[in-house]
Amino acid sequence: MIIEIAQFEVKPGMEDAFKAGVKTALPIFKRAKGCRGLQMLRSIEKPSRFRLLLKWDTVENHTIDFRGSSDYQDFRKLVAHCYAVPPEVEHTEDVAAGF
Amino acid sequence: MIIEIAQFEVKPGMEDAFKAGVKTALPIFKRAKGCRGLQMLRSIEKPSRFRLLLKWDTVENHTIDFRGSSDYQDFRKLVAHCYAVPPEVEHTEDVAAGF
Repeated sequence: MIIEIAQFEVKPGMEDAFKAGVKTALPIFKRAKGCRGLQMLRSIEKPSRFRLLLKWDTVENHTIDFRGSSDYQDFRKLVAHCYAVPPEVEHTEDVAAGF
Repeated sequence: MIIEIAQFEVKPGMEDAFKAGVKTALPIFKRAKGCRGLQMLRSIEKPSRFRLLLKWDTVENHTIDFRGSSDYQDFRKLVAHCYAVPPEVEHTEDVAAGF
């Protein structure tokens, strides 16, 4: 399992529209191949900054299966008009037996 | 509950030392007032980049209680020699009923 971190800078005033778009898109992620979880984090210090933390079985479930799907295009239609700049996307691994 | 995201750029070759330092520090966070969870994520695209995701009851549990404690100084002793640049720290809220 890997964790995708996608960071979004949203246009001022579009924060609620972005949040609503992601919530509408939840079924898209729930049915995406290999997608095991979604969290949406909003920055306290910079309230126009959001992050989606997405759990995938593999990096390719995100970069190939999801990005190649029509569901990805539908997700973009729901949120891309809110972007102030293109999102920054990174993939990570959990490397600690935390708590 | 809030989620602190601390991003660390580690000096090349110090990745294992950083990971070991965080693992040694787990009891520090487990006993920190208001600390409810820790994850250490390592970037796949940039393997010298780590993030700690820490759950706290309040922002002040991190910024005042923890940073004011001797345990914080002990944590820094375990990992700060690995930093390539000062860490970037942000606090976030979970704003979606995700899955």
